[in-house]
Amino acid sequence: MLENFASLLSENGVLDDDRPIVVGLSGGPDSLCLFDLCCRIGLEVVAAYFDHSLRPESTAELQAVEKLAADYNKLFVSSRGDVRKFAREQGMSVEEAARILRYEFLFSQAGKANAQAVAVGHHADDQVESILMHFIRGSGLAGLRGMPVRQIPNQWSTEIALLRPLLGFWREEILSYCKDRNLSPLEDQTNRELIYWRNRIRLELIPLLESYNPKIKQVVWRMSRSLSSDFAWIEDQVNQEWKDYLRWTGPGYVSFLAEALGQLPLAVQRRLVIRGITSIRRNARDIDFEMVERVIQAFKSPPATRQMDIGLGIRLFWEGELVWLAAWEAELPALDKPQFPRSLSEPVILSIPGFFDLGNGWRITACEIPIETALRTLPENDDPYQVWLGFKEIPGALIIRVRKPGDRFRPFGLGGHSKKLADYFINTKLPPRFREGWPLVCLGDEVLWVPGYTINDLYRLSGAVSHALSLTLTQIKADL
Amino acid sequence: MLENFASLLSENGVLDDDRPIVVGLSGGPDSLCLFDLCCRIGLEVVAAYFDHSLRPESTAELQAVEKLAADYNKLFVSSRGDVRKFAREQGMSVEEAARILRYEFLFSQAGKANAQAVAVGHHADDQVESILMHFIRGSGLAGLRGMPVRQIPNQWSTEIALLRPLLGFWREEILSYCKDRNLSPLEDQTNRELIYWRNRIRLELIPLLESYNPKIKQVVWRMSRSLSSDFAWIEDQVNQEWKDYLRWTGPGYVSFLAEALGQLPLAVQRRLVIRGITSIRRNARDIDFEMVERVIQAFKSPPATRQMDIGLGIRLFWEGELVWLAAWEAELPALDKPQFPRSLSEPVILSIPGFFDLGNGWRITACEIPIETALRTLPENDDPYQVWLGFKEIPGALIIRVRKPGDRFRPFGLGGHSKKLADYFINTKLPPRFREGWPLVCLGDEVLWVPGYTINDLYRLSGAVSHALSLTLTQIKADL
Repeated sequence: MLENFASLLSENGVLDDDRPIVVGLSGGPDSLCLFDLCCRIGLEVVAAYFDHSLRPESTAELQAVEKLAADYNKLFVSSRGDVRKFAREQGMSVEEAARILRYEFLFSQAGKANAQAVAVGHHADDQVESILMHFIRGSGLAGLRGMPVRQIPNQWSTEIALLRPLLGFWREEILSYCKDRNLSPLEDQTNRELIYWRNRIRLELIPLLESYNPKIKQVVWRMSRSLSSDFAWIEDQVNQEWKDYLRWTGPGYVSFLAEALGQLPLAVQRRLVIRGITSIRRNARDIDFEMVERVIQAFKSPPATRQMDIGLGIRLFWEGELVWLAAWEAELPALDKPQFPRSLSEPVILSIPGFFDLGNGWRITACEIPIETALRTLPENDDPYQVWLGFKEIPGALIIRVRKPGDRFRPFGLGGHSKKLADYFINTKLPPRFREGWPLVCLGDEVLWVPGYTINDLYRLSGAVSHALSLTLTQIKADL
Repeated sequence: MLENFASLLSENGVLDDDRPIVVGLSGGPDSLCLFDLCCRIGLEVVAAYFDHSLRPESTAELQAVEKLAADYNKLFVSSRGDVRKFAREQGMSVEEAARILRYEFLFSQAGKANAQAVAVGHHADDQVESILMHFIRGSGLAGLRGMPVRQIPNQWSTEIALLRPLLGFWREEILSYCKDRNLSPLEDQTNRELIYWRNRIRLELIPLLESYNPKIKQVVWRMSRSLSSDFAWIEDQVNQEWKDYLRWTGPGYVSFLAEALGQLPLAVQRRLVIRGITSIRRNARDIDFEMVERVIQAFKSPPATRQMDIGLGIRLFWEGELVWLAAWEAELPALDKPQFPRSLSEPVILSIPGFFDLGNGWRITACEIPIETALRTLPENDDPYQVWLGFKEIPGALIIRVRKPGDRFRPFGLGGHSKKLADYFINTKLPPRFREGWPLVCLGDEVLWVPGYTINDLYRLSGAVSHALSLTLTQIKADL
């Protein structure tokens, strides 16, 4: 067993790294065996005990474990957390709360000790039981593959690995190892709810399954190995797809290229959606299969409203070439659209000649140009980002502001008809959330130019005017 | 139900194809419901009944089903097979034998009717039960995903699809459909062994699982949908890898690029190995996990002998850049190596000038060349496929043959030492199986030239000889 254990740690790179390893030591047979093995192969071990405050005996246990670490001449660290209180506060099960507090403690200790890994004592029976529990609760590949031997548990650390080096050994082997080595395990300190579930699986379900196939435990264990390699392969590829198809991500939102996403294999779409949802709601575990299906279905045929609530306070919506998943409360990014600065509550003056920087590299510039030049080149110019207006007299200054309720103007080319600005925007493809902050160039209250779209027909350049004003909206990319 | 059924068939392209569909009709509720639904949506249905000869009532059932098809005004075909006898002959379970004979019948009828598909009545409960059975027996993704709705069952047909359009409906729904439609199902004609197993799952296992999670059936059904999309994605990619890394395939063997294979993700290696094994032993189902693991392990560190028996009468061996999986009895391809024709049992004469075609485009040519030319260009020529030998007198003819026990010669550059040909070959990298048929150019019994390797030092070209003989081995590729 020592040999297999050493070669497994070696395969996982543990023996090549001389930083210490934090071993979660409850004093039960599994963690005791793990601790003993780690010490025997010469690792620099830090024994870490977490008191869940779930049972009165725990103080005596802490002392016993501390003495044990001292006997081995190893560093010992411990902490105590009120699991029941935390569970109540967070509205989670005691089992879940215990798990979170315990791993938080182990990884904070690992950080302090500059450890390469945290090792815990899950064994092959735990693996089989946990897979059966996943099976019963409903799970995809991620749950059916079981616990990995080595994992970077992003929730606790992005650098320190979580190791389960006993996953290849059965409970029986561990108990007889303890006996052979004269180790005296304490009673396992696990909370009752977990014991209740595990016991039902262990005493009812597994014996029934064994009556069908006496080797059921080996069979499930092997299944987990085979599904693990499938899972690892898929994850590698999904990591790549995530990079390739994700466009924007930030607090509470992600967006993808809608068309490309819809053409990916179903398995990839499902996973990208799940990643998107978990990046928005980090504590959402076991995301509902039906929710994901609804999203995938909507990729195929988006609703007429181009927006839907998918649950968990998340909306799905389409914007141009992008499809977004976003928390309702999230503030979405401005992308590369010109927007009047949110920090300003009042309109700003645009001198002539002069310019105003909107932020994000966008600049509006105004200057007079010779009327002859303007008239000569006008027919060639249909760029809505660079327009020329005609005046009898050049105004002293213009105003830049966002839209106001009741704004109207006469869009160029509509025969001089006046239109509500709000209605005009509806006919553009500009996503609604950008209309609010869209910069408008005005003379007094009158909208002269909707940059990027059109000018006011009253100010079109013609032989009837004597002065020409050039207005441009340009973006200087920050990274150029 | 009719609507969901129609849209499912439409998604699977069935309604766009006006060829008939063969429905496996046992007369039980599932197949009856399926038959009725197919008729109602206007498909051209052929009702097909297979009598397993397992129960005395089957003749009466056949008549009842025939009458039913007549009532619907549909074509009816039937056949009878002795399942017990076939099972005995093939050494398989009655269940497996029944399955094989039934599908053989259905697909042969589908071929005759130029049908687009064979439809069978598996429903959601069957799906859950079959996944649980796979789980118990041990299975990877392929089994846990359950039965696909649509599949090209290569074993029976590479063109006609096998459809299971009821997989989305529960037994309850089917029974109440039959009731609503006034359909009177016969008792399901299934063999007892299968009933025994299914009943244990249905009456023992599922109720126990439901006591943990009342929605267990829905959970398993959803799991199968999610794993199906994973499986489909992986299969697509493995199809591609199979094309990319497979080098040779034929009756009883496959070979891959050894180095490239070893660098593929574990999940892909596993699947390529399984495909390789099933392509060699077509009837091997449920290939042993441990066997596959042994092969993968050997890719990492090949045994010193470069060959191992992996079970099922298959050996794994390495040859140059290739790794082979081959039945021990398989005749391996000659690749592009020159080999003396197997069809010839005697040596052949090589005239001077003259040539001999070995087959596969390989040709050995002999002709005299002026001694001055030969001596002048000799130092530049170190191509073992084109050699010049020196003679006091040009022999009348040479002989081409394969090696004989006891062959010895003096390899060029070894200071004139005589060596056993067998030992010489061992030092080359020529795979052993090509040594047997390697062509040798001889004068009488004496080996003059081992084409591609070296000449006999006694016949080296030098100032002491007066005649030069040019020998070449060339390959004209058939496709050029």
